[in-house]
Amino acid sequence: NKKQSRQANSETISIFIPYVWVLGPLGKMKINYLCVFQDFDLASIYVSDAQYNRNIYFDTSPEAVRLYLRYNHWLAKVLLYFFILVDLSLALFEEPAVLPLPIWATMLVELLCLLVFTIRLAHYAKVIPRDKFWKDPKNICIIVILLLTLVDMIIYGALKATNCYGVRWSRVLRPLLLVNVTEGRQLRRAFRSIRNALPQIFYVFLLFMFSLLMFSLMALKLLGKRGLKTIDGAPYFTNYLEIVFDLYVLVTTANSPDVMMPAYNSSFVFAIFFILYILINTYIFMSVFLAVVYNNYKKYLKEEVRQLVRAKRHKMARAFAVLQEHREEGGQPVVSQANWNQMVRLVQPDISNAHRELLWSVADDKNQGKVAFVQLVDLLNIEVITLKSRPHPLQSACPALYLSAPSRLLCRLVQHRAFVIVYDLIILVNAVFIGLDEENPMVSNSEWVFLALYLLEILLKLYVFEPKAFFSRHSFWNWFDTIIVVSALIATIINSAMKSSNRQILDIVFILRVLRLIRVVDSIKRFRAIINTLIRIGPAILTFGQLIIVVYYIFAMVGMELFKGKVKFFEEDSTDPDKAFCGNTDLKGTAFAQLNYCKNNFNNVVSSFILLVELTVVNQWHDILYLNASRTPDRGFVAVTHVSARIFFILFHIMVVIIIINIFVAFVLEAFFVEYSVDKSDLQTSLERKIEELELAVEHVGIVVFPGYRTVDALLQRMFEADLDPEDFAENDDPDGNFANPTFSSA
Amino acid sequence: NKKQSRQANSETISIFIPYVWVLGPLGKMKINYLCVFQDFDLASIYVSDAQYNRNIYFDTSPEAVRLYLRYNHWLAKVLLYFFILVDLSLALFEEPAVLPLPIWATMLVELLCLLVFTIRLAHYAKVIPRDKFWKDPKNICIIVILLLTLVDMIIYGALKATNCYGVRWSRVLRPLLLVNVTEGRQLRRAFRSIRNALPQIFYVFLLFMFSLLMFSLMALKLLGKRGLKTIDGAPYFTNYLEIVFDLYVLVTTANSPDVMMPAYNSSFVFAIFFILYILINTYIFMSVFLAVVYNNYKKYLKEEVRQLVRAKRHKMARAFAVLQEHREEGGQPVVSQANWNQMVRLVQPDISNAHRELLWSVADDKNQGKVAFVQLVDLLNIEVITLKSRPHPLQSACPALYLSAPSRLLCRLVQHRAFVIVYDLIILVNAVFIGLDEENPMVSNSEWVFLALYLLEILLKLYVFEPKAFFSRHSFWNWFDTIIVVSALIATIINSAMKSSNRQILDIVFILRVLRLIRVVDSIKRFRAIINTLIRIGPAILTFGQLIIVVYYIFAMVGMELFKGKVKFFEEDSTDPDKAFCGNTDLKGTAFAQLNYCKNNFNNVVSSFILLVELTVVNQWHDILYLNASRTPDRGFVAVTHVSARIFFILFHIMVVIIIINIFVAFVLEAFFVEYSVDKSDLQTSLERKIEELELAVEHVGIVVFPGYRTVDALLQRMFEADLDPEDFAENDDPDGNFANPTFSSA
Repeated sequence: NKKQSRQANSETISIFIPYVWVLGPLGKMKINYLCVFQDFDLASIYVSDAQYNRNIYFDTSPEAVRLYLRYNHWLAKVLLYFFILVDLSLALFEEPAVLPLPIWATMLVELLCLLVFTIRLAHYAKVIPRDKFWKDPKNICIIVILLLTLVDMIIYGALKATNCYGVRWSRVLRPLLLVNVTEGRQLRRAFRSIRNALPQIFYVFLLFMFSLLMFSLMALKLLGKRGLKTIDGAPYFTNYLEIVFDLYVLVTTANSPDVMMPAYNSSFVFAIFFILYILINTYIFMSVFLAVVYNNYKKYLKEEVRQLVRAKRHKMARAFAVLQEHREEGGQPVVSQANWNQMVRLVQPDISNAHRELLWSVADDKNQGKVAFVQLVDLLNIEVITLKSRPHPLQSACPALYLSAPSRLLCRLVQHRAFVIVYDLIILVNAVFIGLDEENPMVSNSEWVFLALYLLEILLKLYVFEPKAFFSRHSFWNWFDTIIVVSALIATIINSAMKSSNRQILDIVFILRVLRLIRVVDSIKRFRAIINTLIRIGPAILTFGQLIIVVYYIFAMVGMELFKGKVKFFEEDSTDPDKAFCGNTDLKGTAFAQLNYCKNNFNNVVSSFILLVELTVVNQWHDILYLNASRTPDRGFVAVTHVSARIFFILFHIMVVIIIINIFVAFVLEAFFVEYSVDKSDLQTSLERKIEELELAVEHVGIVVFPGYRTVDALLQRMFEADLDPEDFAENDDPDGNFANPTFSSA
Repeated sequence: NKKQSRQANSETISIFIPYVWVLGPLGKMKINYLCVFQDFDLASIYVSDAQYNRNIYFDTSPEAVRLYLRYNHWLAKVLLYFFILVDLSLALFEEPAVLPLPIWATMLVELLCLLVFTIRLAHYAKVIPRDKFWKDPKNICIIVILLLTLVDMIIYGALKATNCYGVRWSRVLRPLLLVNVTEGRQLRRAFRSIRNALPQIFYVFLLFMFSLLMFSLMALKLLGKRGLKTIDGAPYFTNYLEIVFDLYVLVTTANSPDVMMPAYNSSFVFAIFFILYILINTYIFMSVFLAVVYNNYKKYLKEEVRQLVRAKRHKMARAFAVLQEHREEGGQPVVSQANWNQMVRLVQPDISNAHRELLWSVADDKNQGKVAFVQLVDLLNIEVITLKSRPHPLQSACPALYLSAPSRLLCRLVQHRAFVIVYDLIILVNAVFIGLDEENPMVSNSEWVFLALYLLEILLKLYVFEPKAFFSRHSFWNWFDTIIVVSALIATIINSAMKSSNRQILDIVFILRVLRLIRVVDSIKRFRAIINTLIRIGPAILTFGQLIIVVYYIFAMVGMELFKGKVKFFEEDSTDPDKAFCGNTDLKGTAFAQLNYCKNNFNNVVSSFILLVELTVVNQWHDILYLNASRTPDRGFVAVTHVSARIFFILFHIMVVIIIINIFVAFVLEAFFVEYSVDKSDLQTSLERKIEELELAVEHVGIVVFPGYRTVDALLQRMFEADLDPEDFAENDDPDGNFANPTFSSA
């Protein structure tokens, strides 16, 4: 392996062995080597746990430490998430299926998944002390989920074997695995913050419901006896429960202004009633919901992050205790640079020497004691890009040509601001050409011109800039450009090579062409700032993605059991007479059928997810549910099942729209405020100051501090940094706290 | 006048005169009295300007000071706002009118309004120095508005006299008066904070538009050539501009899922395109808009409030300079208690002795110097209720009976917690009865029983509690109960006295009955807290109400000129065949006509306002505008006028939904955070501590500190209090700053 041998050549053999060992923990290796580096292993585990905020009580016996390193191996994690994904996507193949598979096939795959989860759990049980394992609700949860799933599979298999009707009810438990695996830290935190906000939300919700009930009562009294009719000719506002539902839907604005029109047509005075209702319930109450959710979110997150930071420092203090040495009698304990280097190499094997030296000098600058050491973990979380400012390969290969006057003029031209402007103009012209009809031969041929121009741009840049620097890990736009242009070239060639143009390839070509235009955003500084903030909060948004998937999955499973097959979708060219009412006579002449909503059904997991997205967006949900009481009452999902089906949809609305979407908005707000108010954290600036100081000392090495954070926790910590005391090590913590290692503290 | 004579009896005559003088500045009075109190007048003007945050440069000549007092008289302000209201409501009577009046009548009233505004402005010109008057953009604005209106009226009158077509274009200027009068401080601040946020909003908006254009281009390329049809059979996604508009509407979620259905019906893969679009543009971009608006709002408001507070302290320091005396040679200047009392009485004539003494003792507690004096204005803004704990009048009249055992038992019963619970239960039973059919005689008779019970409750409470305390200014719920119950009694009696039941009176009876139920909220502590917060931010919400009215009025005026008479509304019982398409053949068979939206028109100012509310709520606006391009293109307001009419509606959406609603949400969020995080400001708690200390000293006087603020500015100041240095007097300020009084500083 090339990388390893390079490392082995440049470093001593004593570094080589743990490095290989970290890379290959799943392989077998001799224990006797490990004893030599026991201290460094333990210290590096503490540091890496601190870096990734893992709060796991592992045993400190060499056996357990080895197992723990394997437990944290990236391959094990990828495998775990792969099998969770497989388990979740089984819903595609189970009845009601997108692609039906026989029951034995899905059952076998599910059994395999269960086996993998059991092995993972058993591995975990070996890493941490027995009593800690049984005290952790996560583990109990997983065991219960696994057992219930097994029981359900047996019952379902037996029922199917005897041709009875069976329900795979344990499917709703599947997404809970995402929450309860040890890696689901962010997700658990999000759920905790929801749980903590619930009491306050509940009181506001009660008040909101009270307001809703009062307005409904008033509407019943004012409008019920006037003999008004809806546009369908049904009586308007005569049934109290229907009014409550209609006004609840009005809060989401989905049936505005339809629900108001009959009253407004009778007299404009009634419009005041509805305007007042919307002002109070839609604008004020919904803002109050956001305020309550946001406030609680901030409050509890702050507390959680505070604990997280204390746990982190605690672990770093442990690592320090392992590595420390007393330079003089009675002096402060310190960590020597040799130990430091060894430990940093273990924690982050791919770190460059320059970067490591920089970290040491920042830490060394203050003192070599504990405080500086504890900061190491924060320093590691700051992204530093090491750019070797080496000469261009062409310059080394053919210096005469590369340094000639025309070549240097070309370099100056490419680096000039005008070059960027010219290419931005080309992109704009390209946008116009894309908008034109591509069947015109002039337009379709112009595509080749644009492709050639874009390729030329990339080649020119490669001529001017050092290729490794051009394609460094953080040159997002360079990667973006190259990938898009090269794929567009390949797709366009394939497309024109084929005689009859293939629709799919053409689609890809179109998408690539349009994506190419996005590049123009990067040229404008103001836009870049906003885009960078969005990209930076991207990973945290993924946590919300998981949250949404957990909730959607559960609702989709329940919805499929309740509503599958009630509404049928017929293809465009079908001549089935049932097409006009989605295959359900209850839907004859309803808005649902008229608006061609037949595909909005729970007939498989994909449709269910898309329907749930539509319900999240809220608009027309009364039509989707055909629940609009102001037209003829009780049709659709409610007609084909029961009025109580509304409870399912209202629960979904409260859960997703009122709680989760508000937490999402709260998070985006908070992240933007942090980006606006603090540009760089203290540590980052001290790192940059150091880089400036060292400029002359570290020769031929360009280091750039990237103002980003490697982990979501680092972003969260930054949000609440101001309130944290850097000297707080949490050393006197209760040993039962869930981050201390009890066996170590007795050693 | 009873109040004055009472005051005169209890206080010395020296207090009486300025008191009368303050009450009656519009009357004539002798100047020679004033000379005696000149200092106090000036000081009290400074204090009162500080209290209400008036930043007006008045002349300090006695003449100007007198005029300035008159200028600030409440009657003058009420008259001004009355005439602004009259001016604005002229739109009801002008073509297109709700109640048409002849042109000469509305013209005459408008002339009268203009006259009043001119007089007010002339008064203002006399109060402040000439050069300051002409430098103030507010005054220039008013003069321009008045002149333009006059010119427009003359042109319009001339055109009408010669039977030509004329447009009253100056009507859009009317609401600007609300912004530019000296009292429109809050409104101006709101507009300033919008203006300051605009650049940042603009960049995010550009990025949002870029994303919209890219998605539209992709939609055109992916979906335009597939030959898909909308439910109306029109081609789907073939025209770029129509796609842009459709996707813009999708951001508001108004046409979800309709706009997606044809693509989704063709393949579920396209749903991913729309889901991605909604995620990015609806959820992320709209949150970013809120974040940007909120962040800028907070930032600029903070700066404005900081300036406000410095100006306030500056004015208080001026007042101190007027009143100060040197007790000993070279010592710190102080204000004597006599001067203090006289000044406080001038500023707040209705202050109780106990309250004034309390303020003095709080100020005295620290020192009698400037810092304590400057705090006076904040102390005055804290609401303090003086409750004389005097005996019940029945006790004084007939002590034997009132203090007898049965009477005392009754008092204990009424004050018991169970009494509240019993009445809450009665209210709940009442709610059920209201929900039942009132034509049932049992139900309609039960109403008398409930009325009697509620009356009994009020009478019992009046028996137990001292009536003046019961009806004190801050006993909101007592007032609420009594007014509702008494009005319900009167309305019910009138209703049953009349032979044929009158619909209007019955409506009022119903509304009152339902309102009575709201009382139950007050019994639950958790609810009370939320409700109180809402009530407290109520006045500030009024500022947003004015803001909305200004914007609505301008859009309504423009909309009426553009769209009046294009759509006609026919009464329910009309048999006109044009009714089916709202009197406009362009609307035949459109969703607009089918949904019975004919009354959503710009035919008069009331309809326009209601239509604009519907557009603010956003839902169905594509139907309201009949602009839904995914059905047959270009109908309705666009068909009856021109495609460019869309610009009007999109402008309205950007202005109101993206900017103003977000600022409103930002304000509610901030206010709730303040209420959640800070319960009482420092000053308030020091006031309460003082009250506890003085408990024994101030005999027979109960004082309750009400945790509310008299002015919006006080609430704002509290929001940003933490950042303000209490010692910052802004004394070295540039005399050209807009709060210092230049003539005074030279005196």
